[in-house]
Amino acid sequence: MTKSIYPAYPPDLSDEQAQFLLTNLKDWSIAHGLAVRPAPSFVSQSQDPTGVLATSAPVTLFPSPFPRHCYEEGLAIQKAYNELYSAIARDEEWLKTVVEELAGVDDFVAKLWQIHLEVKREGYVQDLTLGLFRSDYMVHVDPKEADAKPEIKQVEFNTIASSFGGLSSKVSEMHKYLLSIDAYPPQATPIIKQDSLPQSKSVPSLAAGLAASHRAYGSSRSSHPLCVLFVVQGPERNVFDQRHLEYSLLAENGVRSFRVPFHKILSDTKLDSERNLIYSPPHAVGQSYEVTTIYYRAGYTPDDYAGEEEWTARLHLERSRAIKCPSILTHLAGCKKVQQVLATPHSPHLARFVPDEATAKRLLKTFAPIYPLDKSEAGLEARRLATDVGSASRYVLKPQREGGGNNIYRASIPPFLEKLAETNWPAYILMEMIEPPALNNVIIRNGEVQKGGVIGELGVYGVCLWRSGGQILENWEAGYLLRTKGDQSEEGGVAAGFGAVDSCCLIDA
Amino acid sequence: MTKSIYPAYPPDLSDEQAQFLLTNLKDWSIAHGLAVRPAPSFVSQSQDPTGVLATSAPVTLFPSPFPRHCYEEGLAIQKAYNELYSAIARDEEWLKTVVEELAGVDDFVAKLWQIHLEVKREGYVQDLTLGLFRSDYMVHVDPKEADAKPEIKQVEFNTIASSFGGLSSKVSEMHKYLLSIDAYPPQATPIIKQDSLPQSKSVPSLAAGLAASHRAYGSSRSSHPLCVLFVVQGPERNVFDQRHLEYSLLAENGVRSFRVPFHKILSDTKLDSERNLIYSPPHAVGQSYEVTTIYYRAGYTPDDYAGEEEWTARLHLERSRAIKCPSILTHLAGCKKVQQVLATPHSPHLARFVPDEATAKRLLKTFAPIYPLDKSEAGLEARRLATDVGSASRYVLKPQREGGGNNIYRASIPPFLEKLAETNWPAYILMEMIEPPALNNVIIRNGEVQKGGVIGELGVYGVCLWRSGGQILENWEAGYLLRTKGDQSEEGGVAAGFGAVDSCCLIDA
Repeated sequence: MTKSIYPAYPPDLSDEQAQFLLTNLKDWSIAHGLAVRPAPSFVSQSQDPTGVLATSAPVTLFPSPFPRHCYEEGLAIQKAYNELYSAIARDEEWLKTVVEELAGVDDFVAKLWQIHLEVKREGYVQDLTLGLFRSDYMVHVDPKEADAKPEIKQVEFNTIASSFGGLSSKVSEMHKYLLSIDAYPPQATPIIKQDSLPQSKSVPSLAAGLAASHRAYGSSRSSHPLCVLFVVQGPERNVFDQRHLEYSLLAENGVRSFRVPFHKILSDTKLDSERNLIYSPPHAVGQSYEVTTIYYRAGYTPDDYAGEEEWTARLHLERSRAIKCPSILTHLAGCKKVQQVLATPHSPHLARFVPDEATAKRLLKTFAPIYPLDKSEAGLEARRLATDVGSASRYVLKPQREGGGNNIYRASIPPFLEKLAETNWPAYILMEMIEPPALNNVIIRNGEVQKGGVIGELGVYGVCLWRSGGQILENWEAGYLLRTKGDQSEEGGVAAGFGAVDSCCLIDA
Repeated sequence: MTKSIYPAYPPDLSDEQAQFLLTNLKDWSIAHGLAVRPAPSFVSQSQDPTGVLATSAPVTLFPSPFPRHCYEEGLAIQKAYNELYSAIARDEEWLKTVVEELAGVDDFVAKLWQIHLEVKREGYVQDLTLGLFRSDYMVHVDPKEADAKPEIKQVEFNTIASSFGGLSSKVSEMHKYLLSIDAYPPQATPIIKQDSLPQSKSVPSLAAGLAASHRAYGSSRSSHPLCVLFVVQGPERNVFDQRHLEYSLLAENGVRSFRVPFHKILSDTKLDSERNLIYSPPHAVGQSYEVTTIYYRAGYTPDDYAGEEEWTARLHLERSRAIKCPSILTHLAGCKKVQQVLATPHSPHLARFVPDEATAKRLLKTFAPIYPLDKSEAGLEARRLATDVGSASRYVLKPQREGGGNNIYRASIPPFLEKLAETNWPAYILMEMIEPPALNNVIIRNGEVQKGGVIGELGVYGVCLWRSGGQILENWEAGYLLRTKGDQSEEGGVAAGFGAVDSCCLIDA
């Protein structure tokens, strides 16, 4: 944590000011679906067996200051990132080398690759892929340089189930609303102004991505009506985040969608003789739909695969003619090993996918140095850095797999590695810590107010639709998310229970 | 309850159909603010001390069939009702005779009248009044006539705090949504069609009424910025109903409003030397607003007046230059005695306010016969009808005061009157029971599903802005509400915990 580049923030509130802000926040969020289902620790299943209760989503009371040029760069570079990851997903040869390195230590990656091979053997029947991506950044101020200008450094690139696009639009609306009713005290309003608060367009823009895929699929081959399928986890507390995309997909694009829990895929869908994916909703006997697009909001974590049946379900979906959001190869392109390979100092890989030098240079500037923990030259250097308490303090150790919650930070790295069998070290990558400027905010979770130091993570959504042959049909930046967490937790997932949805208050820093 | 004029309805649902409908209803309602704060019996204050939890508002699963010509007549006649009640509110002499009859038995009415007299002594400084009215009807099929055509009969006319305008727009949106995703089974869709489901415009239309009043007030006389004041009850479970009006008032009309609990009026507002009402929000030290319009969502029931302080607060507000929604006289015009006097068979009163014979005749058709329980000729007739078990079975006994919960029905009337001192009889009116056709629906409350016979009550909103001199500046019909309750309870208030918000499915009956 470096010194703050931000003005004194947020302002202190009198009891009356806090009360007014909180009351308006609580009512606005429920009135506009900025909500989640309560955690079982808050409301037990026996109290609310049918699940009708909801609570305000965890949000920040104030929009967090964010350097304007960093925000603008994040949005501006998204189309290049979309192209980069679609290029990676099309490069099976290259992905194979990455996957093979991981296969020994990451069973999940190995199984995903097996599915790809199995479908490939049979032959893919869909050459379109949809990506609803999210590139996550932190603001970094180089502690080694005096007067260093803040810049964005990528934390990770999500190629599957990028969440919070539904709630992000709402929270930026809410902060704008709170400003418009003068709920922020006068000493804050030189900083919080309407034109400092960019409205995230993530809801309509991600929904438009699904609609573009739906249209690109073409007409029905099975004579059934067409639909989009949201493949979801069973009980989903973050359901409204997904619902807002569904509602926008229907209201603004006229596209029908259904939600199917991952464990119901095999019972509720089948492939016809042409491998069209046919969905038969259990509630509508005799009525079936042909699926144009499978939108995975499940299946991204090993936890979703309890046994062989789930793997069979994934294979079943991948074999189908439906456009996958994302395809298996795109899913694999999002594994941290790929990010690491691209960001390994002096790596030749970025140039392979981004021939334009200026673009490649611009992308490279957003990478924090990442090292493998293998026995390559960079890997050996990383092992030295990670096992020494002094140097380890500038690094974070991350598992290659998706899904937060298991990062090892700074001084904890050497003892962690000491306990870990060395053969498992390559399952992790070592990343230089991004050093965000000191910042404070107030997080509201279930009515509890937590004030203190926070870290914000800017997520920029991207929509990309491409053919395996290389043609890119659609490519756009699709709004943003700011997730903010207490700076003690050093974890980033709001869903995981540590953070809050936020919006950017742009400042010139 | 007469025989049904409706088709077989609602359709039976398979478990899967019910599940699909319920899941979509539960998610849509929270995602769109069709919500209430949970009752203390569902979520205790100790579990959720800051009040962040919300639950879906009680709604019907299906839109209830409603005769199209009845719906159309209710909407068409609203402007005439607005004129009628604004004329009554302007006729102090006439109101005085009504109030004087009640004063002995209804302390609340007497106190309201005292306030009027006190302000009158000093002189009113505002000649504009705003009414946000709601005229409530039931469908009546005369049991004495074969092949009787259904018609609407007025249950009551609300001149203050007409509620559910905020949620009504949402529930008609929701039923349309459920239809659009084919959540209603095929056997229902000959009845439930998009063009059978009129969208209630109550949110934007009522908000536009407040905005019209705000503009008509003119410019600030105190040099403070202008605002609308929602005077509310302390803890308000139905807060989102009110919030949707506030949000529409701001977003669509650019008008600021504040919520002030009734018990905070004296501490947070003052009158300046010209009796401008100045509101100083506790959260904004040094910032004050001049109130253009007082919108009462409290103060309509004796329960809101714990002691003299509340009466002082009401007087304080009435003395101000702010436009009242409604004024004291308009509030008094809504007492049931007025409805009774108008609806007493062969009454001369309607013609006094509605000189146009055709309009008067049309209004009269919506009245159910209502009798006083005094010693007039009609009153003596009523006493005979009410004390005889045979004839009492076609009647309901209602207190003159506002607020549901105390009606006495049919066979219960004679024993009730027997126990009541005869001097208190004039506090009640006797009304011929409206006989609604048999109808079924499913009510969802806190996830509990109650299926069975129901009674629907159509509420038609009206906006009217007038000068005490007689000029009507604005007059429009402002959308509708359908409230549906189990036909056992014979009570109508959703807030009181017995009913649900519904929408009309128009049928030709």
